[in-house]
Amino acid sequence: MNIYNICISHKTSPVKVRELLAFTKEEKVNFLKAALEQNGIQECVLITTCNRTEVYIAGEEEAVEQIMVLIASLKNLSYSEILKYFLRYEGEKAVKHLFQVATGLDSMVIGEDEILGQVKADYQLAFDTNTTDYMLNILFRHAITCAKKVKTDTKLSKTSVSIGTLTANEVFHFEGEKDSKKVLIIGLAGKFGTIVMKNLYHNKKIEITGTIRSHNLPEEVRIVCPDVRMVDYKERYKEINEADIIISATSSPHYTITYHELKQALTRQKQRLFIDLAVPMDIDKKVLQLKGHTLIDIDYFKQLAETNNHIKLKEAEAAKLIIEKQIEEFYKEINFRDFLPYMGNIKELVEKQSFEGVLYRIRNIVTNKELEVILNSFKKLL
Amino acid sequence: MNIYNICISHKTSPVKVRELLAFTKEEKVNFLKAALEQNGIQECVLITTCNRTEVYIAGEEEAVEQIMVLIASLKNLSYSEILKYFLRYEGEKAVKHLFQVATGLDSMVIGEDEILGQVKADYQLAFDTNTTDYMLNILFRHAITCAKKVKTDTKLSKTSVSIGTLTANEVFHFEGEKDSKKVLIIGLAGKFGTIVMKNLYHNKKIEITGTIRSHNLPEEVRIVCPDVRMVDYKERYKEINEADIIISATSSPHYTITYHELKQALTRQKQRLFIDLAVPMDIDKKVLQLKGHTLIDIDYFKQLAETNNHIKLKEAEAAKLIIEKQIEEFYKEINFRDFLPYMGNIKELVEKQSFEGVLYRIRNIVTNKELEVILNSFKKLL
Repeated sequence: MNIYNICISHKTSPVKVRELLAFTKEEKVNFLKAALEQNGIQECVLITTCNRTEVYIAGEEEAVEQIMVLIASLKNLSYSEILKYFLRYEGEKAVKHLFQVATGLDSMVIGEDEILGQVKADYQLAFDTNTTDYMLNILFRHAITCAKKVKTDTKLSKTSVSIGTLTANEVFHFEGEKDSKKVLIIGLAGKFGTIVMKNLYHNKKIEITGTIRSHNLPEEVRIVCPDVRMVDYKERYKEINEADIIISATSSPHYTITYHELKQALTRQKQRLFIDLAVPMDIDKKVLQLKGHTLIDIDYFKQLAETNNHIKLKEAEAAKLIIEKQIEEFYKEINFRDFLPYMGNIKELVEKQSFEGVLYRIRNIVTNKELEVILNSFKKLL
Repeated sequence: MNIYNICISHKTSPVKVRELLAFTKEEKVNFLKAALEQNGIQECVLITTCNRTEVYIAGEEEAVEQIMVLIASLKNLSYSEILKYFLRYEGEKAVKHLFQVATGLDSMVIGEDEILGQVKADYQLAFDTNTTDYMLNILFRHAITCAKKVKTDTKLSKTSVSIGTLTANEVFHFEGEKDSKKVLIIGLAGKFGTIVMKNLYHNKKIEITGTIRSHNLPEEVRIVCPDVRMVDYKERYKEINEADIIISATSSPHYTITYHELKQALTRQKQRLFIDLAVPMDIDKKVLQLKGHTLIDIDYFKQLAETNNHIKLKEAEAAKLIIEKQIEEFYKEINFRDFLPYMGNIKELVEKQSFEGVLYRIRNIVTNKELEVILNSFKKLL
């Protein structure tokens, strides 16, 4: 028995293909049950996210082919189509792949930790469907432990290099007058506007208003944040009056906020954070002359992203070491488990022939390198 | 503590230098005793043959330098002179070197087994002088065992590629009228004549007569075989009458033995083996027409030497494998010996915590590869 993995992900195929291989929960259960009926399959776990579809198998090599045929048939795809996009891993490579997936090292945004929840849920589903046994149970337990270790012992998941996330972090950390914050995004429909909105949208303490220039709101915004409040671009100064944080990210060649207009429009003074994500700048730096205002521009984020990128690369290396260690632990557990059936007989042998006698016999059948390993291991116990 | 070797041999230096480093038995004992007084030397063995001078040391690295200084001082040589010719080996390389020396793989004539006797005698001398302890005792015991194995399990020492040895073999195997054989060597002073004589000289059942042309007998012949019977070249036919084996190896452009002259000279008929080592041939092939005569020429030996060379290369490979195995055994014994002081405590641990408990603890401190080695070794006992 060995461990196999087949996977398609953002690395191997376009979203169109990945969409064809999405599974509802019911489909997942059906797939897992059908998988276990194939020859040479002892255990099976299916993992799906919007970026990947993966199957982990404990069984014989022939099983891999059968699983692909099964997927093709369940999804009404041709087998040859599937073959084109699926990567195949075997043994330690399959194990390592799972660990990398679980820790977010294989993700589009390196180190993101949403994937861990998805891996856990999909493993749990397979466990509940009774399609896992000791091999995949041990494997997933170690992979999940490993991902948690990477999360707590490295800064990988906490170190962002995305302007959207970094901007959101500034918003979260800004201490305004109240616990809940009003955010105005000028240029909601633009690239950065949308990204920032997505990063803030689910936070209940944040109330977003977006300015748009037309009613041609991009589909993405409509889908992701269906109930976000939108106002016309012309209303922006009025909105600033109420806002704690003002993010401007338009592609306008002119300032979207000028000092004079702002000064005229503002009826109340408060702590306000201006974030300017535009090139050329959207916000007139003179707004800082108004009391309580601070301003962060895109250069700051670029520099931060660069610093974080260095950190991230270093942390990814640290994560890889954690993964290596945990893979060791996984294999140790598997090897030890496989040894257990022999334990009784060997204990008997040790009792009959004495530990010394057994060690003498071992000396005669092993190489010197092996003998060194054995003797050193026992010595280390003292 | 480690094992070190310094050596000069036919491979590193001319005979003139090697002669300077010859030791009488008394000098050997003095050297060994003086060696043990140096810092960082626990054990010491000195091996000398006409082709080599070697010192094996168990001790610290600094010892090597001190031994060279000691040799230089004992032999009235400059240290820098000594440095030029001595090779140095350390650890496993030193061990391997001794094994190769003892099995004759480092000898001028690959696989010759005289060296084994010399290694044994010199080791015994060191043992008797009390300059060996467990490390070199175990080392030399394994090296000698190994050499014996190579001698019995391979054809290395029995496969000659030298014309002298091959000719001597033919002489030994020739079944004449009596148990003792009379050998006539025509051209005793020539290269092949001398070599063949040396190969036959010590066999008590062989009576050698050599023909010479002048009284300028080479010194080598006089030294090696001082009492060999010599007659003038002109007497050769008379001598053939008595001889069982006639070896001719002159550089004469003419036959040394012609059919007609031989026929005239012979007064008795007997089984005679003619061996012609000359190019061009010395012996008229027509001598075979006389009853009881057989003839072997140099082409036969050349072909035999070539065949044997192939065998020898193959057998040298087999010898190397035997050496590798025996080196393993040596290190296993050393490692096991070093472990013995811990045995009691570990036995106690096994009794207290049970074998299973100890194995669990080992699992936690070793790598997976190490764990596999340990578990597989125990499994193999069943």
